[in-house]
Amino acid sequence: MASKAKIAVLGASGYTGSECVRLLLRHPHVTIAALTAERRAGQEMRDVFPQFSPYPLPRLVPLDGMDWAREKLDLVFCALPHATTQKVVKDLLARAPQTKVVDLSADFRLSPAAYARWYGHEHQAPELQEEAVYGLVEVYRAEIKKARLVANPGCYTTCAQLALIPLLTANAIDSDEIVIDAKSGMTGAGRSAKEAMLFSEVSEGFNAYDVGHHRHMAELDQEFSKAAGRDVIVTFTPHLVPMNRGILSTIYVRGTGGRSAEDFQAILSKAYAEEAFVHVLPLGEVPHTRHVRGSNMTFIGVTKDRVAGRAIIGAALDNLVKGASGQAVQNMNLMLGLPETTGLDQVALFP
Amino acid sequence: MASKAKIAVLGASGYTGSECVRLLLRHPHVTIAALTAERRAGQEMRDVFPQFSPYPLPRLVPLDGMDWAREKLDLVFCALPHATTQKVVKDLLARAPQTKVVDLSADFRLSPAAYARWYGHEHQAPELQEEAVYGLVEVYRAEIKKARLVANPGCYTTCAQLALIPLLTANAIDSDEIVIDAKSGMTGAGRSAKEAMLFSEVSEGFNAYDVGHHRHMAELDQEFSKAAGRDVIVTFTPHLVPMNRGILSTIYVRGTGGRSAEDFQAILSKAYAEEAFVHVLPLGEVPHTRHVRGSNMTFIGVTKDRVAGRAIIGAALDNLVKGASGQAVQNMNLMLGLPETTGLDQVALFP
Amino acid sequence: MASKAKIAVLGASGYTGSECVRLLLRHPHVTIAALTAERRAGQEMRDVFPQFSPYPLPRLVPLDGMDWAREKLDLVFCALPHATTQKVVKDLLARAPQTKVVDLSADFRLSPAAYARWYGHEHQAPELQEEAVYGLVEVYRAEIKKARLVANPGCYTTCAQLALIPLLTANAIDSDEIVIDAKSGMTGAGRSAKEAMLFSEVSEGFNAYDVGHHRHMAELDQEFSKAAGRDVIVTFTPHLVPMNRGILSTIYVRGTGGRSAEDFQAILSKAYAEEAFVHVLPLGEVPHTRHVRGSNMTFIGVTKDRVAGRAIIGAALDNLVKGASGQAVQNMNLMLGLPETTGLDQVALFP
Amino acid sequence: MASKAKIAVLGASGYTGSECVRLLLRHPHVTIAALTAERRAGQEMRDVFPQFSPYPLPRLVPLDGMDWAREKLDLVFCALPHATTQKVVKDLLARAPQTKVVDLSADFRLSPAAYARWYGHEHQAPELQEEAVYGLVEVYRAEIKKARLVANPGCYTTCAQLALIPLLTANAIDSDEIVIDAKSGMTGAGRSAKEAMLFSEVSEGFNAYDVGHHRHMAELDQEFSKAAGRDVIVTFTPHLVPMNRGILSTIYVRGTGGRSAEDFQAILSKAYAEEAFVHVLPLGEVPHTRHVRGSNMTFIGVTKDRVAGRAIIGAALDNLVKGASGQAVQNMNLMLGLPETTGLDQVALFP
Repeated sequence: MASKAKIAVLGASGYTGSECVRLLLRHPHVTIAALTAERRAGQEMRDVFPQFSPYPLPRLVPLDGMDWAREKLDLVFCALPHATTQKVVKDLLARAPQTKVVDLSADFRLSPAAYARWYGHEHQAPELQEEAVYGLVEVYRAEIKKARLVANPGCYTTCAQLALIPLLTANAIDSDEIVIDAKSGMTGAGRSAKEAMLFSEVSEGFNAYDVGHHRHMAELDQEFSKAAGRDVIVTFTPHLVPMNRGILSTIYVRGTGGRSAEDFQAILSKAYAEEAFVHVLPLGEVPHTRHVRGSNMTFIGVTKDRVAGRAIIGAALDNLVKGASGQAVQNMNLMLGLPETTGLDQVALFP
Repeated sequence: MASKAKIAVLGASGYTGSECVRLLLRHPHVTIAALTAERRAGQEMRDVFPQFSPYPLPRLVPLDGMDWAREKLDLVFCALPHATTQKVVKDLLARAPQTKVVDLSADFRLSPAAYARWYGHEHQAPELQEEAVYGLVEVYRAEIKKARLVANPGCYTTCAQLALIPLLTANAIDSDEIVIDAKSGMTGAGRSAKEAMLFSEVSEGFNAYDVGHHRHMAELDQEFSKAAGRDVIVTFTPHLVPMNRGILSTIYVRGTGGRSAEDFQAILSKAYAEEAFVHVLPLGEVPHTRHVRGSNMTFIGVTKDRVAGRAIIGAALDNLVKGASGQAVQNMNLMLGLPETTGLDQVALFP
Repeated sequence: MASKAKIAVLGASGYTGSECVRLLLRHPHVTIAALTAERRAGQEMRDVFPQFSPYPLPRLVPLDGMDWAREKLDLVFCALPHATTQKVVKDLLARAPQTKVVDLSADFRLSPAAYARWYGHEHQAPELQEEAVYGLVEVYRAEIKKARLVANPGCYTTCAQLALIPLLTANAIDSDEIVIDAKSGMTGAGRSAKEAMLFSEVSEGFNAYDVGHHRHMAELDQEFSKAAGRDVIVTFTPHLVPMNRGILSTIYVRGTGGRSAEDFQAILSKAYAEEAFVHVLPLGEVPHTRHVRGSNMTFIGVTKDRVAGRAIIGAALDNLVKGASGQAVQNMNLMLGLPETTGLDQVALFP
Repeated sequence: MASKAKIAVLGASGYTGSECVRLLLRHPHVTIAALTAERRAGQEMRDVFPQFSPYPLPRLVPLDGMDWAREKLDLVFCALPHATTQKVVKDLLARAPQTKVVDLSADFRLSPAAYARWYGHEHQAPELQEEAVYGLVEVYRAEIKKARLVANPGCYTTCAQLALIPLLTANAIDSDEIVIDAKSGMTGAGRSAKEAMLFSEVSEGFNAYDVGHHRHMAELDQEFSKAAGRDVIVTFTPHLVPMNRGILSTIYVRGTGGRSAEDFQAILSKAYAEEAFVHVLPLGEVPHTRHVRGSNMTFIGVTKDRVAGRAIIGAALDNLVKGASGQAVQNMNLMLGLPETTGLDQVALFP
């Protein structure tokens, strides 16, 4: 690439937006050309996120201050709230059809039918919904390379899919018996000021939430069913951990045809042998969220259960990196024809 | 009770020992007559736990400085490490047969057969093993009232049993399909200095441990099988949460004979209607560990799963109180003929 | 006391309000007759604070639903926001002059002159401002016993005053050279939903705030000047610690007339020898907030500095107990003629 | 540089050692040739720090397995315990005189006289003590470029020096009136297993330690006195914050000759205008440790005190990066003739 790609981050005052900025600031082949925020429009990025104080960055502008055609952006990260995104992306691509988009919201992740069923309202950009490619790189790499619009997967769902897709594809586990007990750090809940997210409401405590009806299930249903070649409905329970970053999924599975933990470990190891960002641990080792913090890495570990035929699979990633903005940059690299790992080589920050 | 009961706490330099002291200091009908510790023997309790600095307490003595016969103790809390306890209790009861004992270790929880199978060595006090009553008050209240030696249940197992025993007794759930995903605060790991327990190794991270082979399973097997009237083996995975206190068990069950979440909630509500320390939440509400912190309370909540016939049950308690020393005091009250709730009326400390 | 005193808590949906409820629930001589909250009016206390779920409590009502005359309350805890309180207390005492009030806001802590200077607007109940007694029990016990309206001190200021008032009274330190570096847990910032108080904004970080102009300085100026018999202006810097409860003040002082750390320790020990809730540590020991958590205790420790003539004094308390609601109950006990320590005997919860 | 420099990290099983590895793994001009550890010798780095699992690294060897002459190392990071280091460095440089050394211990930071006074025993390599250059880059850059042995400054002292050295050099503050109230995250206490460092002993609490006699004072005395051109003795109190990384120093100073906060801010801004890793905030803004986490950046902020002529200066850095391993890599870059910022461009990880 002769010159640097021009990038914008829409919704730069939230955690996934600022995480895109963190990663892009050190990316050798891009330049941050625009940052948007509504409530904080007109402010400097350092007023919103003081960690960026030493770095030159464009001032925050409101979305309607963006002239998509004139900006000639190569790629836009869209880190806006779910449901408001679809209209923004439609406008953007209408005015600047050559610009590429990685959308971090849930708006383009589902098929039109699934979207209608789960959200109960009409999609405002159904033709883009058809066009959008689901951005789980390890599964859809080829399609992503050619895509104009990529729907970046959710954090919980990335974690569960990386652990389960190869096993479902291989028909190695009973798809009616999957229990996913997921635990997330607090940045997964976003940056809006809510009483339940205050430090003192969260610290020194633990709880489940949205039990039985978390919206991420739609995405899991869709992708697991595709992988298994049949309808898959899993049990999924999210929990909140008093920590900033990280998701751990503890997944309970039963083998088919006598398959056991050893087989699962072998299937996963083979599936990810060439992947830069998925690391399968030796049988019996368990992943910790702390060992992937700040990196784009996913750790997966398989352990035998004492109940015959059952296994327990752990998967850990940083919800803001591989679960959001890191995966988004990984998608960007593919879409711009750059080496997939560019700008994503940061080793986990432990402790 | 005319005069105050004379109580000793063996192993007062650990967390369950100090928690006994905290509760006993405000108990109106007992006096703390002796405290033991080995490594810290000779020191004041305030040197080991400065929070006791304002209160008069006996100096720490080593175990072999105790003259059981002469002390004329009414009751002893034994908060010593697993395996070393059985010999101590044997000696104590040989010399002071009228003294009562609440043992907080695992040494007297299992039947002789189960003990041999799980620990692989001979028990040093098999006749006491036979005599010991399992101290889950809500199940064994009548036996505890007459007991001389009570084996206080483990923290993980108290939490899971309170949620499941009434359902297993009622034959309401499939006992082959139980998954217990348990999460514990760090005090559950004790106070010995280990690298893995350092603040910086634990904070801002989450992980499972002892997957597939945690020793608490023996206790669950025994008590669940008794309740169900058949052999029950559950899947149980413990995790560590970066918080001091609290256990949350997320339990996945399938109803028998068309029974569902509503039925489970009704069975549990009825079972605990008269219990002071088990509180069943309305259907669909989830328990948080923070809402029982420092209290002897257990919160249980039942939620429907979207997978037909399945439900998700949450149970939360403070591992050092209802999961250890609070339950021990509850046992003591029964054994000494005192009202069961005496000294245990502390409301949860939130935040 | 023949019958139980009837108590109301105004502003029961905040942390100091709920902490009053926690303490009053176990107080043997009072009954909670009414609880108010505006935004949450009509809800049960358990909806706002699930830890109270097992206990019967009155439903939350709005302030204007209270008929002060008819309620015949013995005492009201006023845990309302600063500035809105003065009108409420004025109305209340106009309609129910026999009711006693402990106000936890800053509204009645300052003299009329100081209030005008610091807040820049007129007080709405100047006659009550004159009547109000400053509720630092260890200093104003006699006046509090006879008071109808007590202004409960702030958390930072209680901590600093307990450490410094005896030294200023004794003229033992240079009152021009006092530096108070204070650190508070997050409950000190209240329960309103603000971005800066979110878990992820606070956890794993540390900072000062309101440097050079914190409003608590007015209270310090007033009380320190009274104690010293001359104008005292201290340097005071508050910080936020990623923990729920606790204040630690590290105070730098210089002795007068050759007085040193030993003298300060002796003066403080003597001043608090008979006090139930102030505990002076041996010279050279430092207080930890964790050792007073959940209790009404204050720990004070004096250490020699290596700079000749200087000493470093540490003081620790729980900002919600001795720094707010515990001290309020202590005041209530005095105002109702009850033993001062009733209901406040809870030992610190550590860990 | 044509080929990559060969680097070893001695003491790779501690936090400063692993932090060197984290930074070096992504450094374009070095290769990690050897890692030592005593207790963990023979193990893979991934067994000691699982976050390195995906990366190829040399196996841990004991110190006495290193053949310094044959290894032909370009530079060695010495992250060994204080006091054991001096002998190791002496041996190393005797056998491989061309190898350069950055020592992260305290062994070479003090002048011979100061070392004798503070440690009370003889130094084992007095000639190297003379040779060693103190590695505070912003002050000693020219000397470091020519040095063979650099003594990397301590974390507390780096933080306080960066804030105060320009003011002392400019004679802008009264050097008899400096109070440094410092707060550190727990990694500053190292990775050895001690009861006082356990998660449950630390979390949800705050305290000072080593009040009046912390060994880092020697380093402050020496460097402050050099800068001021007269003997300087400061008051310094360290505290422990329940967080992993970060130091915040709150520094109380009094201006000389009518100088005030504005002057201090101007002096500091000018001093660091060209520095990559020191960022001076606008007057009145306060630094947070969270905004430098994981980066090599130092933030400094100056605020007016309400006491005339006094100011409060805050300085924040990551104790493991700018306070240890990041500064060590910065030193390495200078010593190897590389651009000073190479490999240190990582933006802070927030949240």
